[in-house]
Amino acid sequence: MVMALKKKPVTGMKDILPQEMEIRDYVIWLIKDTYKTYGFTSMETPCVEHIENLCSKQGGDNEKLIFKIMKRGEKLKIDTAKEENDLADGGLRYDLTVPLARYYANHANELPSPFKALQIGNVWRADRPQKGRFRQFMQCDIDILGEPGNLAEIELILATTAMLGKLNFRNFTVCINDRNILKAMAAYSGFREEDYDEVFIILDKMDKIGAEGVAKELEEMGYTKENVETYLNLFEEVNPDVTGVRYLKEKLGDYLKDETADGMELIISSVEAAKECEFNLKFDPTLVRGQSYYTGTIFEVTMDDFGGSVAGGGRYDKMIGKFTGQDTPACGFSIGFERIVMLLLENGYQVPGKAKRKAYLLEKNMPKEGMLKVLAMAKADREAGSQVLIANMKKNKKFQKEQLMEDGYSEIVDCYCDSVDQL
Amino acid sequence: MVMALKKKPVTGMKDILPQEMEIRDYVIWLIKDTYKTYGFTSMETPCVEHIENLCSKQGGDNEKLIFKIMKRGEKLKIDTAKEENDLADGGLRYDLTVPLARYYANHANELPSPFKALQIGNVWRADRPQKGRFRQFMQCDIDILGEPGNLAEIELILATTAMLGKLNFRNFTVCINDRNILKAMAAYSGFREEDYDEVFIILDKMDKIGAEGVAKELEEMGYTKENVETYLNLFEEVNPDVTGVRYLKEKLGDYLKDETADGMELIISSVEAAKECEFNLKFDPTLVRGQSYYTGTIFEVTMDDFGGSVAGGGRYDKMIGKFTGQDTPACGFSIGFERIVMLLLENGYQVPGKAKRKAYLLEKNMPKEGMLKVLAMAKADREAGSQVLIANMKKNKKFQKEQLMEDGYSEIVDCYCDSVDQL
Repeated sequence: MVMALKKKPVTGMKDILPQEMEIRDYVIWLIKDTYKTYGFTSMETPCVEHIENLCSKQGGDNEKLIFKIMKRGEKLKIDTAKEENDLADGGLRYDLTVPLARYYANHANELPSPFKALQIGNVWRADRPQKGRFRQFMQCDIDILGEPGNLAEIELILATTAMLGKLNFRNFTVCINDRNILKAMAAYSGFREEDYDEVFIILDKMDKIGAEGVAKELEEMGYTKENVETYLNLFEEVNPDVTGVRYLKEKLGDYLKDETADGMELIISSVEAAKECEFNLKFDPTLVRGQSYYTGTIFEVTMDDFGGSVAGGGRYDKMIGKFTGQDTPACGFSIGFERIVMLLLENGYQVPGKAKRKAYLLEKNMPKEGMLKVLAMAKADREAGSQVLIANMKKNKKFQKEQLMEDGYSEIVDCYCDSVDQL
Repeated sequence: MVMALKKKPVTGMKDILPQEMEIRDYVIWLIKDTYKTYGFTSMETPCVEHIENLCSKQGGDNEKLIFKIMKRGEKLKIDTAKEENDLADGGLRYDLTVPLARYYANHANELPSPFKALQIGNVWRADRPQKGRFRQFMQCDIDILGEPGNLAEIELILATTAMLGKLNFRNFTVCINDRNILKAMAAYSGFREEDYDEVFIILDKMDKIGAEGVAKELEEMGYTKENVETYLNLFEEVNPDVTGVRYLKEKLGDYLKDETADGMELIISSVEAAKECEFNLKFDPTLVRGQSYYTGTIFEVTMDDFGGSVAGGGRYDKMIGKFTGQDTPACGFSIGFERIVMLLLENGYQVPGKAKRKAYLLEKNMPKEGMLKVLAMAKADREAGSQVLIANMKKNKKFQKEQLMEDGYSEIVDCYCDSVDQL
């Protein structure tokens, strides 16, 4: 009568075992604790969003990957349904940004301005399953809404790097650029505005195929040798720091607004001066970041021992306006939570300040007096901060103890019925 | 081109504002911190489960309330679909117990035995929307799998009440009973086994309609006056403590196994002796708890200032076997997380140990030197444990400060461009 249970989780999603959960719980706590010192406040939206909101073209390719929720009851009309969206009225969110925009539109009057939002939550994408990539994964975003100045960028970078530092990450690099610098360099080199997207897609490969590769691909796309040469020379002349920014301010002239260059310089100097831990801050004019919604600064965190970025973000001043009809300055930084956890697991990371673990093993048929004695001792241990397990003694006590020691129980107390008063 | 955004969340689900999130974050932290001292370990399963698992008759009426996930790509065949489950391959979980059973079946070899599981996560039910009841809500369950003895019940009750005590709840009552005592009392009174469920449904109304009301309804259902009288007399004679248990052990004779009565007595004495905070522990032979899967002890936490229970649980030794083919002793306690948070909000609960909040307001066009000065001060404040906000000064500074003070910023520093070095 009972249908067969499927023991495995659904395709592409994973069960999380206690060992990993210990790290996840700690990282979530640390993120919240750190970001709060920067004035961010937690917020949350439902995991399910209106299907219309999810399909409103804000999500790019992610909109193809939505887990859709079927209509229920009378609203579900299987007979007359022609296409998917006749059957669905909701979907699982594929990111935290679209829900944030809806939330802000719904609650702006009840929120402080600027609103410094911290969201940690699962998102779902029906991607092709592959190693290390899951269909449910946790995202962790901080966003500052309503702050037009560079203070937003500075605080986002300081908070994110402080958190990474507290997890003992060192030697990571924060790359920073600005969409307006990207555009100015392309304009200066003679590219037309309508070609920028194509040019940037090729530029984005710089770290993989090198300057020569980029030049080759640009020429193959039909851009003139002169434009391509001017463009690539620029990149060669730019130092990866404030001097590089100053050089471009001089060199690009009217193509680049002074405030863009000055803003970038302020961000870099401020972060260098106020950072809470050691890391490299790099002005990287080749940084592109794919999402089309960025309007200004963009940034990314890379690590030497990990290919690809572990965090990224930027300014998107035009997105919320598309939802609310009124532009709202916005800037955000998203941490690749799953990548961070994966790196910590790979490095054998130990959660700091672990409580002492103590186990009491009870012989079979322990009388009431013995039980009360053990419970009283456990209570005292717990009040002293220990993590205490009380369990029944197994036949194979040796194996049981080995298992407990593997689980971190450093003190194991045997409790026999006839000698519990001697404990 | 862009479709209109819906600002409200989907029907029956809610956005959570920062003020409530602060309490939720704290309660989640406290739950994890407290339960860990009792040896529980965090675990997690995906929010999406196989539709077959959700519809396997373990979930009772909740199975009618599933949010179903539509198949994707070629697997979705709208033309030939006849019924809902032709279109769906997954669903959002409606509780944490069915996923726990699947998880345990999948990972038993990798888990300690007994396995003390702590789960905090959202569940979804497409209930009719009503005040205070939501279609996405958080559940918080602790379960002990693989422990047949009463140690499980004792630790579950001690851990749950310790947590409630740390939230300053007082004068709450833990009611405890056993399905086997329920059955023995019914058998002793002459009811037939096939009538138990019906009898218990009426008994369950005792707190609402009183003994007379229960007697009346039972007689109306056709049970003999004699049976009904014997039954209700029993309840009158039972004290709500260990003496009541002892009385029943004596009175019910062979109808009640000695080990059931002795077990109940051990649980009550142990919890009374080892409890971490003050509360009433009440042996309540009228406690029924609806779920049919309970096989032994059942318990519930009620509060004077709240109608209905805020936590409940019991032993369900036969459920996991239905999934895995092998019975596994299991006992669990579920906290009504949303009710707890609602009560705390209503009582104006203040999260303890809040950091000091300090704000720096920057005059417009703050020069770089001023910015660096403020960032350095903020860094020092943060290192000293303060929660620091840096924001631009608004035209209506008075209103801005009032808002900040409402948000708990007790110190607000005005930073003017020409005097920042005097700060």
